Amino acid sequence: MPDHPFFSFDLLATRGHARAGVVHTPHGDIPTPAFMPVGTQATVKTMTPRDLREVGATVILANTYHLYLRPGAETVAKMGGLHRFMSWDGPILTDSGGFQVFSLKGLRQVDDAGVTFRSHLDGSIHRFTPETVIAVQEQLGADVIMALDECPDPHDYAYNAEALTRTHRWAERCRQAHRRPDQALFGIVQGGVFPDLRAQSAAFLTGLDFPGYGIGGLSVGESKAEMHAVLDLLDPLLPADRPRYLMGVGTPEDLIACVARGVDLFDSVLPTRIARHRAALTRRGRINLRNAQYADQPGPIEPGCACYTCRTFSLAYLHHLVKADEILGLHLLTLHNLHLMLSLAREIRQAILSPSRNDVFTQYNSRGDPS
Amino acid sequence: MPDHPFFSFDLLATRGHARAGVVHTPHGDIPTPAFMPVGTQATVKTMTPRDLREVGATVILANTYHLYLRPGAETVAKMGGLHRFMSWDGPILTDSGGFQVFSLKGLRQVDDAGVTFRSHLDGSIHRFTPETVIAVQEQLGADVIMALDECPDPHDYAYNAEALTRTHRWAERCRQAHRRPDQALFGIVQGGVFPDLRAQSAAFLTGLDFPGYGIGGLSVGESKAEMHAVLDLLDPLLPADRPRYLMGVGTPEDLIACVARGVDLFDSVLPTRIARHRAALTRRGRINLRNAQYADQPGPIEPGCACYTCRTFSLAYLHHLVKADEILGLHLLTLHNLHLMLSLAREIRQAILSPSRNDVFTQYNSRGDPS
Repeated sequence: MPDHPFFSFDLLATRGHARAGVVHTPHGDIPTPAFMPVGTQATVKTMTPRDLREVGATVILANTYHLYLRPGAETVAKMGGLHRFMSWDGPILTDSGGFQVFSLKGLRQVDDAGVTFRSHLDGSIHRFTPETVIAVQEQLGADVIMALDECPDPHDYAYNAEALTRTHRWAERCRQAHRRPDQALFGIVQGGVFPDLRAQSAAFLTGLDFPGYGIGGLSVGESKAEMHAVLDLLDPLLPADRPRYLMGVGTPEDLIACVARGVDLFDSVLPTRIARHRAALTRRGRINLRNAQYADQPGPIEPGCACYTCRTFSLAYLHHLVKADEILGLHLLTLHNLHLMLSLAREIRQAILSPSRNDVFTQYNSRGDPS
Repeated sequence: MPDHPFFSFDLLATRGHARAGVVHTPHGDIPTPAFMPVGTQATVKTMTPRDLREVGATVILANTYHLYLRPGAETVAKMGGLHRFMSWDGPILTDSGGFQVFSLKGLRQVDDAGVTFRSHLDGSIHRFTPETVIAVQEQLGADVIMALDECPDPHDYAYNAEALTRTHRWAERCRQAHRRPDQALFGIVQGGVFPDLRAQSAAFLTGLDFPGYGIGGLSVGESKAEMHAVLDLLDPLLPADRPRYLMGVGTPEDLIACVARGVDLFDSVLPTRIARHRAALTRRGRINLRNAQYADQPGPIEPGCACYTCRTFSLAYLHHLVKADEILGLHLLTLHNLHLMLSLAREIRQAILSPSRNDVFTQYNSRGDPS
């Protein structure tokens, strides 16, 4: 693994276990805590890059598995890399493809050297190894790339123990294979809901001295209490001077509760996915725009929300768009939902840097209070 | 029919039969020739109002039939009218719903008093009369509204002659029913491809002194030569001081050829519809982004095009988006296609106001040359 001269993390302030900082990358800074919109196929669904800037995105995620299959990493590389390909000039993080491959039902076979799987697109057979996923991610050219990991059922001790050995060996091999000095490679802590395995994983991976750590295998069926217990366990075990990225999490409530447990980075398809289900996130919970009660409501989704959707359109109009299956409805809901997650992350950061009596930690969810 | 104190047309220049002017409306001016993007369901598909402004839209069209059925004219009126409902503060034109109703196969029955039809949404039975379509359009609140007309097969003389009597009687009744002084009501010239019927229609309708005239029943199966012959016939028969609106037309080539025959206003679903078929308009013809030849093309759809899509994204990326069925692809193609039609209309206008040796009339299509 190269040094990472273009990547660093500054921890600026803490409040309880919550942390505020800045991740420096070759494509700009990421103030943390940060939420990363997910651009699976090199597009955050329905959003242009300028829309993403407008809602306050500072970093986005793209999926190695999907881009490897289509359009192919060679094509992306030939087009100048992922930033230029999708015209997003800010930081990008790619996952390793591990989670996606291990989510394929009955289409994959793991061995100690790697994992063989069938494409969900055309059934063709492919193989990921630690070396190939690093090569693919080097072709894609994201600022932060992830080690290949195995993501078992969080409640299966035997499988987690066995998989953890592979995940650790793969992390070493990813580290050795990685060449690009303008990319930071994160290791991924696994171990399900089991404290001994999580502790073992944190010890092993921090020994490899990664510039940042993913926390994987959560938000896949375990309870919130189990997720929180893992985070509480890991907080003192992970180095304070490296960013921690809780993969695939989560809801607005998760952001607050998990920042309060020492997490810096999040990603989730939730805001974009529920928009496609015609739902909007609000500070008072989710609402579904298909509901007839909105048909004649002149107000916005969220009074006081500064997003383009809420500044411009009524619930009645959004209801009409979703009833009429208009694409604009999906876009406007996506824009609002991302704005909510990103402005919540900013608000959380502010509450760490400058705590006040009635800030987001106390307002939103008393269990998230780190003070 | 009220006077129309808020609506007027200034003819600024002519070149051959081509005309450059300005339509003044309560929601702003429309420099003509103008192309109107179609917002069938109170949304120009995939485009926000700010996107529409950016591509240069000065007026948009919405469909009375669709909005009458969903969300209903009462709902739109309750939400402050169509402008506020869809948050488009520029001029809007609504059609009368006649064309849509007469396009329903086997679902409608016409009599002298009106037309009864079944909703394509739920099969419920409805009736449009001249009076009801005016009432609905007054509730919607567009700046320009259209009389109810019947739109027969353009080659059926007997049907055209019979329908023309109804269309003329309906135009009178629309004129009498119309009350809102902030809306201009246009009559619609019909008569298929038959010169005697078209001349009769022009004479009858100009006798009613509408502030503008639609030319209906074209672009529905007749040849370009037949369409052009109708326009050549009508040009001297329609008053020079009123705008002429060629309904449902058309392609880039149509814009040039029909402006050259005295038309001021156009609308067509073409740029938005072909975008949904993954096609882009270019000055060298249409291209389909699904075509594998674009998979590794780093250039834009149209070199030199000033639209956001061409300024920002490669053919390779657009190809990837449409292959991956990403909504962003449809949006970016729609944006480009509308930009092309709207910038072409501006270029045509400039070529009328300031002719030059190598302008759009000579470059694009020699048959469109009005000089």
